[in-house]
Amino acid sequence: MENISYGKIVLIGAGHVGSAILDSLLRMNLADEIVVINRNEKKALGVVLDASHTTAFAYSANANIRVGTYEDCKDAQIIINTAGPSIQPGNSRDRMVLLQTNVQVMKEIMTQITAYTRSAIIINVSNPMDILTYIAQTEFNYPRNLLIGTGTLLDTARFNKMLADLCGVDAKNVTGFVLGEHGGTSFIPWNAVNIVGIPFHDFQKQFGLKEPVDCEKLLHEVKVSGLDIVELKGYTSSGIALSVCRLVGAIMRNERAVVPASVVLEGEYGLEGIAMSLPCVISRNGVERTLQIPLDKEGEKNLKICYEYLRNVIESIS
Amino acid sequence: MENISYGKIVLIGAGHVGSAILDSLLRMNLADEIVVINRNEKKALGVVLDASHTTAFAYSANANIRVGTYEDCKDAQIIINTAGPSIQPGNSRDRMVLLQTNVQVMKEIMTQITAYTRSAIIINVSNPMDILTYIAQTEFNYPRNLLIGTGTLLDTARFNKMLADLCGVDAKNVTGFVLGEHGGTSFIPWNAVNIVGIPFHDFQKQFGLKEPVDCEKLLHEVKVSGLDIVELKGYTSSGIALSVCRLVGAIMRNERAVVPASVVLEGEYGLEGIAMSLPCVISRNGVERTLQIPLDKEGEKNLKICYEYLRNVIESIS
Amino acid sequence: MENISYGKIVLIGAGHVGSAILDSLLRMNLADEIVVINRNEKKALGVVLDASHTTAFAYSANANIRVGTYEDCKDAQIIINTAGPSIQPGNSRDRMVLLQTNVQVMKEIMTQITAYTRSAIIINVSNPMDILTYIAQTEFNYPRNLLIGTGTLLDTARFNKMLADLCGVDAKNVTGFVLGEHGGTSFIPWNAVNIVGIPFHDFQKQFGLKEPVDCEKLLHEVKVSGLDIVELKGYTSSGIALSVCRLVGAIMRNERAVVPASVVLEGEYGLEGIAMSLPCVISRNGVERTLQIPLDKEGEKNLKICYEYLRNVIESIS
Amino acid sequence: MENISYGKIVLIGAGHVGSAILDSLLRMNLADEIVVINRNEKKALGVVLDASHTTAFAYSANANIRVGTYEDCKDAQIIINTAGPSIQPGNSRDRMVLLQTNVQVMKEIMTQITAYTRSAIIINVSNPMDILTYIAQTEFNYPRNLLIGTGTLLDTARFNKMLADLCGVDAKNVTGFVLGEHGGTSFIPWNAVNIVGIPFHDFQKQFGLKEPVDCEKLLHEVKVSGLDIVELKGYTSSGIALSVCRLVGAIMRNERAVVPASVVLEGEYGLEGIAMSLPCVISRNGVERTLQIPLDKEGEKNLKICYEYLRNVIESIS
Repeated sequence: MENISYGKIVLIGAGHVGSAILDSLLRMNLADEIVVINRNEKKALGVVLDASHTTAFAYSANANIRVGTYEDCKDAQIIINTAGPSIQPGNSRDRMVLLQTNVQVMKEIMTQITAYTRSAIIINVSNPMDILTYIAQTEFNYPRNLLIGTGTLLDTARFNKMLADLCGVDAKNVTGFVLGEHGGTSFIPWNAVNIVGIPFHDFQKQFGLKEPVDCEKLLHEVKVSGLDIVELKGYTSSGIALSVCRLVGAIMRNERAVVPASVVLEGEYGLEGIAMSLPCVISRNGVERTLQIPLDKEGEKNLKICYEYLRNVIESIS
Repeated sequence: MENISYGKIVLIGAGHVGSAILDSLLRMNLADEIVVINRNEKKALGVVLDASHTTAFAYSANANIRVGTYEDCKDAQIIINTAGPSIQPGNSRDRMVLLQTNVQVMKEIMTQITAYTRSAIIINVSNPMDILTYIAQTEFNYPRNLLIGTGTLLDTARFNKMLADLCGVDAKNVTGFVLGEHGGTSFIPWNAVNIVGIPFHDFQKQFGLKEPVDCEKLLHEVKVSGLDIVELKGYTSSGIALSVCRLVGAIMRNERAVVPASVVLEGEYGLEGIAMSLPCVISRNGVERTLQIPLDKEGEKNLKICYEYLRNVIESIS
Repeated sequence: MENISYGKIVLIGAGHVGSAILDSLLRMNLADEIVVINRNEKKALGVVLDASHTTAFAYSANANIRVGTYEDCKDAQIIINTAGPSIQPGNSRDRMVLLQTNVQVMKEIMTQITAYTRSAIIINVSNPMDILTYIAQTEFNYPRNLLIGTGTLLDTARFNKMLADLCGVDAKNVTGFVLGEHGGTSFIPWNAVNIVGIPFHDFQKQFGLKEPVDCEKLLHEVKVSGLDIVELKGYTSSGIALSVCRLVGAIMRNERAVVPASVVLEGEYGLEGIAMSLPCVISRNGVERTLQIPLDKEGEKNLKICYEYLRNVIESIS
Repeated sequence: MENISYGKIVLIGAGHVGSAILDSLLRMNLADEIVVINRNEKKALGVVLDASHTTAFAYSANANIRVGTYEDCKDAQIIINTAGPSIQPGNSRDRMVLLQTNVQVMKEIMTQITAYTRSAIIINVSNPMDILTYIAQTEFNYPRNLLIGTGTLLDTARFNKMLADLCGVDAKNVTGFVLGEHGGTSFIPWNAVNIVGIPFHDFQKQFGLKEPVDCEKLLHEVKVSGLDIVELKGYTSSGIALSVCRLVGAIMRNERAVVPASVVLEGEYGLEGIAMSLPCVISRNGVERTLQIPLDKEGEKNLKICYEYLRNVIESIS
């Protein structure tokens, strides 16, 4: 990886999500150089100017932030893709409504990126998440370990937070994942959920809950949470920005942290032909390894539903 | 201050600025509890939900974030006011267009706040900055040291960044302030500007600049920078959020840091009857002390223009 | 808790451990005011001077660090006790050799502290950990939730790190605890150990280990690790300092984080009459709640051995 | 710089200073990989083990810390040299007593380093600072911009802290430098000292001091501060560790921050043939540029004394 400028990030998209990612990267001192690309370059300039002023404040590192072009990808360590429309208030509450438009956008972006690099780690944020991640990797033969979708990372954060609030602990103490599609067929392998080793079925007693946790209700709330925020706030930004920063941090600091993310399957659970989220060990090399949480019968059934749904969508657009 | 819940912040306003402040407070781990108040409670809820999910991510502290009411001010350590309309793209480029509306909004908010506390430190972000800060303090007889406007803190950050970029150093190494009004009559006491003790008039030689720094042009660019960002990005958020966080950090960590901020004058430079920005020592007690950068003749002239302008506006609305 | 000065820490002891704690508290910006008490006041002064200079550096907050007396406990939020001799190179490798001396030191310190406060959260670092924690709480009738020993928090960190290195992941992804005595009878409930929900018995397959993890060997290495470091480095400091900072962070930021720590039992697992480590929910109120990881037969046997050992020691000194 | 592994630090020396540097690097998340070299490898192992356990704690990044050899220098981004004896309690209070021994140690170390790299940035911490820095650079023809001594960086921190305490502000708001030798002939160009642009001669009035600041006394206290700490605490560690971290941070984050540091002069103030401290712009490239604070007559006199002293020492050992 001789041509990589370590600490350099290219951020594609200067909308609410791109802007929030830029701000969070800066607050967490995660990059030395951030180049913003946007179809409307004026908007990129506004976002860049506003953010660049924050480096003058004590406790904020002096990152170099600027507007750029796809040529900047040539030595980027990480490329973050937020381009393409996102779900709007009043839309159908299914990220698949974005399918036609965003597949096209994704292909254009990958064409641009691969003209300059095949060594950068690409973090895809655009929806429909798993479809775009699959197409980007397979149609452009991009190294599988270097193309990651944020996938159910944010769903997992939401799940952990909701469960933690019920139990009265910090969300970071919850072990438990939302897996599969970043969308309607995502599922939670409840058999693996625990808080510091206390299994899920013991929560009611140990945390003094009035009633058992309603798994279906909780999963439903996790799934609609993002769409609810779109209706309430007009867009989502904070949570997705932190999802990206979690991946960037793990890459930049070579953490080998385990984080759920969307990757193209290569035989995990005996499956291939889709991308979906499962826990990944993330380092400077991107996805070092994927992990397979053992599934019970319920989990296997849910995985199958998720697989078939995603596979159908992929086949519908081939 | 027996009733203060240390670490508790009440944030008034859930627009772009309020939302960016909330995100930055969280990324910098500056608060334990953040209560968001907004006229449209749904928007507050959206902003709170989105932000609360970020506490589930590694390296983000588990702050308690929720929607609240003015009653939450009763034990707040800090209250941040972002309410009222802000400059829109296409508006007149003078924050005074917001005068009539925002004076009214500010009074309503101060009425609400003072029904519950006179011990919290209020950070005012709304414009016209110095007018609102003056009215809030004087009409409600709020302790002067506890009512701070972000004032020229952001203008100063912009100035430092622009000058630093010219000289090829980190903006945090620039010593130099924009003082007076957060608006058209703000001024820079150039005699006090230095980089690590090297005086301004030596910059061209020491930093190998092709030409001397054009003071007028630079001050102009600082002044229009925020308005330019409004045109380009549609709003400003990143820079103002960090300005607030700078003050919050200095208060929460009892730093005694010197930060330019808008306060009601009590004889500084022989003046009173307005609020404007000058360097303040900020601690857990709010404004510990104001400092008076020595002014040369140019500075004295500019100060006078600024004073008379602000004084006229205040008299016009009395 | 009207008299508490939030952000104020009293640190008792200015040896290697006290000094490392002071440094780490500062680097993590965890306190506004740190008062150091040491029998040899000159040493305290040296430690304080050296540390205080670090606040002048960018990115280090301006904490107020000074030498003090027990009177400073009267409004402290947290009191950290590191006093009394620690294990020396060449010593018997059993922290119980410190028993007679340190019980006496602990009683003197508690007498001093309780002359000024019963509201501060006391973090005990001195050994033998669980005996001192028990005596301090019971003999002085200190609120149980406000007296915490670092206990197996460091043993747990070591265990997580060793297991993580075997599996090629970040130690923070390991869920698994060393419980019981901070000493020879500590034990690991293996049934609760997992990495992101993957149970321990699955590690060999999932992480591609050449052989199954040797539980006995690993526990042994965890137990002797601290003593090994004493032989190699002459003392331990880094790990124990972070253990204290973990607790301080959870308290200062009101995190409700789950952390293993030594507390006096009040019926957990049907036991009382000792202090030992189990997972505690830590907040601004100290120990909010203790959690009981479900034990299998092996775990129950180990718990019994640990209990009887600690109970015997306590009875021997009554 | 094709062979550099960005984020990799080699730390030479595992004594009190090396150990404190390691701890502070970790707390500030400044490195991905830290390799410790020590003549007594057991001590290195103890220091490494103790530090490595801290990566298991929340909020500490998962750096890879290990014992190594000089071969690890071959792809290091930064090499930190703390080897050789330091001032002991009871010693003569002049760092020059270390001259003979440490010149020899420095040459051996540079021989080892240059066998593997000429691309790493070397940060020298060993004393006598400026002599060792000079010899290391000139005798081994190491790129001048890549060899930096901590020099008066710590003296400057001490000076800023003492002055800030007198004036009641955060030390980070003091602009003012100790220049020249890290030792007896260091000096302060008082004409350049200011707090937020307020010149030094105005401090008494502006900060309400009872008497004018005694420049000679203050400089003396700065000079003896380190030696006092050695007498009181037995060694110094916290301050020097942060000095190193300040440089490491500026390099790793490509900050272009201005920091006083010891470099071989190449005509600054018309001088060459010594190394001494002056403000340097520090980036990923090491010393980007040196700055020359304008000196008044007093300053010029002090510079001459410093120069002649250092030059004499260098000639005495040639």
